[in-house]
Amino acid sequence: MATSRAEPSFCLGEHTLKVPMALFKDNRRRLIERLKLSPKFTNRAMILLQGGDSHQRYCTDVDIAPFRQESYFHWTFGVIEPGCYGAINVDTGRSTLYIERMPDEYVIWLGKIKPPQYYKEKYNVDEVLYVDELCTDLQKKDPEVLLLLKGLNTDSKSVTKPAGFDGIGQFKTDNEMLHPIIAECRVFKSDMEIEVLRYANKISSEAHKVVMRNLKPGMYEYQAESLFLHHCYSYGGMRHVSYTCIAGSLFDMGAEYNCYASDITCSFPASGKFTEDQKTIYNAVLHANRAVLAASKPGVPWPEMHRLSERVLLEELKTGGLLQGDINDMMKVHLGAVFMPHGLGHLMGIDVHDVGGFPELIDAALANPEQAKFLYEQRINQFRGTGGVRVEDDIVIIPDGAELLTCVPRTVEEIEAVMRGDKSEEK
Amino acid sequence: MATSRAEPSFCLGEHTLKVPMALFKDNRRRLIERLKLSPKFTNRAMILLQGGDSHQRYCTDVDIAPFRQESYFHWTFGVIEPGCYGAINVDTGRSTLYIERMPDEYVIWLGKIKPPQYYKEKYNVDEVLYVDELCTDLQKKDPEVLLLLKGLNTDSKSVTKPAGFDGIGQFKTDNEMLHPIIAECRVFKSDMEIEVLRYANKISSEAHKVVMRNLKPGMYEYQAESLFLHHCYSYGGMRHVSYTCIAGSLFDMGAEYNCYASDITCSFPASGKFTEDQKTIYNAVLHANRAVLAASKPGVPWPEMHRLSERVLLEELKTGGLLQGDINDMMKVHLGAVFMPHGLGHLMGIDVHDVGGFPELIDAALANPEQAKFLYEQRINQFRGTGGVRVEDDIVIIPDGAELLTCVPRTVEEIEAVMRGDKSEEK
Repeated sequence: MATSRAEPSFCLGEHTLKVPMALFKDNRRRLIERLKLSPKFTNRAMILLQGGDSHQRYCTDVDIAPFRQESYFHWTFGVIEPGCYGAINVDTGRSTLYIERMPDEYVIWLGKIKPPQYYKEKYNVDEVLYVDELCTDLQKKDPEVLLLLKGLNTDSKSVTKPAGFDGIGQFKTDNEMLHPIIAECRVFKSDMEIEVLRYANKISSEAHKVVMRNLKPGMYEYQAESLFLHHCYSYGGMRHVSYTCIAGSLFDMGAEYNCYASDITCSFPASGKFTEDQKTIYNAVLHANRAVLAASKPGVPWPEMHRLSERVLLEELKTGGLLQGDINDMMKVHLGAVFMPHGLGHLMGIDVHDVGGFPELIDAALANPEQAKFLYEQRINQFRGTGGVRVEDDIVIIPDGAELLTCVPRTVEEIEAVMRGDKSEEK
Repeated sequence: MATSRAEPSFCLGEHTLKVPMALFKDNRRRLIERLKLSPKFTNRAMILLQGGDSHQRYCTDVDIAPFRQESYFHWTFGVIEPGCYGAINVDTGRSTLYIERMPDEYVIWLGKIKPPQYYKEKYNVDEVLYVDELCTDLQKKDPEVLLLLKGLNTDSKSVTKPAGFDGIGQFKTDNEMLHPIIAECRVFKSDMEIEVLRYANKISSEAHKVVMRNLKPGMYEYQAESLFLHHCYSYGGMRHVSYTCIAGSLFDMGAEYNCYASDITCSFPASGKFTEDQKTIYNAVLHANRAVLAASKPGVPWPEMHRLSERVLLEELKTGGLLQGDINDMMKVHLGAVFMPHGLGHLMGIDVHDVGGFPELIDAALANPEQAKFLYEQRINQFRGTGGVRVEDDIVIIPDGAELLTCVPRTVEEIEAVMRGDKSEEK
């Protein structure tokens, strides 16, 4: 991590993106602005967040993985070290970071221990103290209430852990106000945040292309995963992936930079050449994706986009000879869900939940007379056992539509060109 | 993971090592044999171990890292899935594995759910049931006592978590007998285990060579780490490292295969060519390493080997003009610890604790008249700020000495040859 005095930032070398600490300062500003609009807002409130800790494998002293910051803490402070706390005076906007105090003897293994002043400059906060000073410092600052982060993660059904420390009992705390407001702030991305998401997408897209170029029949899925990971880390400074790679009949892989995620799925034949049947299915999915992309803009309801994707999918499957009958009638019996068993998508930063493959649903549909009448069973059976197709992109809703952040080969022609090493046709 | 009916095994492709499930069956046999020698042993005892679970990042639904089995459970059963339990009837040796029952709808994402019979064959155990059957199955088997695993990990100071399940209160349990015995069993490696350690070393050694060949001044440490990780995973099927890579002034990096670790440090100049001063320090460390390797054999006490390494190191530093005086006098004031602040080594499978760099200790020694009189301060100062040198190999004590598992270029000549791309002189 390099920091410059002119503009504190996170950067992993000239070839990687410089993420300005102003991004996090701006997030803090947005958070305070929203908090003040809350009818429950009281003066002299102080936000207190607890950062993540590293975790060891079971009873051993080996880290499970390189440390990755807790997401709310990262959004607010952009701090990459474990064991921190952060406080924000809501009235003044003044931010205090509390860092771990390293025992003196760590100098042998870590080199010179950096003083608080170093972290104050690195993270562009107003003050840096040690965690062991947290309680007395809060006593001194004497807030009316500590706003702590407690709330449900609707994807995992887990609850965030509110900040805790010895002596917190002497403070008035509020566990309810902060979570919905900070969560909503996270939904709306600033331009600085989109820039990081764009970079995460750029590098992950390149890594998908590396996989396409190097894939050969007989290779193991994990070898493709390894290529992806290596490219993202070595060329993009992306040490973590946004989720464990899913390398099966499709490649659902995305890396994160400074905790900002990408989430991209590519589906292509190992041979480098689509059969006519593969083209039929692939294009059905791609056209559904592109129809939604073209129609996306502020104010468009999500369910409407989901129905649009199902409609395009069903139309193409009908053209491809897998389905018969009226599309509107198919929509009424939810036939789309048989072929697209997952949601249309999800907000970025909320991670992926599902992988492809849906033969069981087709059996259920064949057994359901309301749906079965639309299905050409014999034609459908030709596609069994081939896994699924997914075309997953990352987009930002902008004032006049949607910006596509992902830049991987998508059409059959583009994919085949990349896989045969033809750079001229590459996207 | 491929399994053959002839010999169940863990394998990640033709190019990777086949680890026979007989290894774990043999571990179970050795464990029972040792338990029966214990004065506390009673009949109708049953060992019950709980396998590891996957862990999510904070409140999210994203796994922190790909699942890695708990080490005691792996040693006993070799099972790569999370959420399992395993029981062994100590009288009969009969083993039962309890696996997670997947909800039926998981078929959409996972494909056909494998039945218990599949796992019985895959892991070569006597019986496979579901975890939700554990309590009633144990009631039926009615053991006199359940031997659970509870004990201190002396490296982390953490305590292993004994198996737990709803209803355990109705059984007599023993938390004391198992831990010291299974820990001691793990110290002594079977031939089958050494074969896996040898493989882990072979692939990690190759990966170190790839780093040496590709290192150029100006590269980032994390790019070297990424190369290492990619080689181990893609060519060796090693998805996990034994510990987070330490890529600084030296490369302390080791990957694991089927949970069996390697732990290798290489130190070399980024330029590919040692200066005379670098040679002096490097050879002092290498010769200390090699002296210990040559002297290691069954029955040799660890402290004696530690003293031998310090003696060689001090002798070479004296020859190199950094020290003056009598070596025996230096040994009396523990001068070796100033230059080698960590232990001589550690048992394999217990993970690494320390990184290089020791200028602080030298300042303390310079301030200590008992040690300072041996030091040529000016000459020593020439080496400040250059980080440390470590030569870390993995060895097995065999009846007539020690086998070196690590196979990386070690002499100055070998390292320089590899770094200039000369394969003829490669080790």
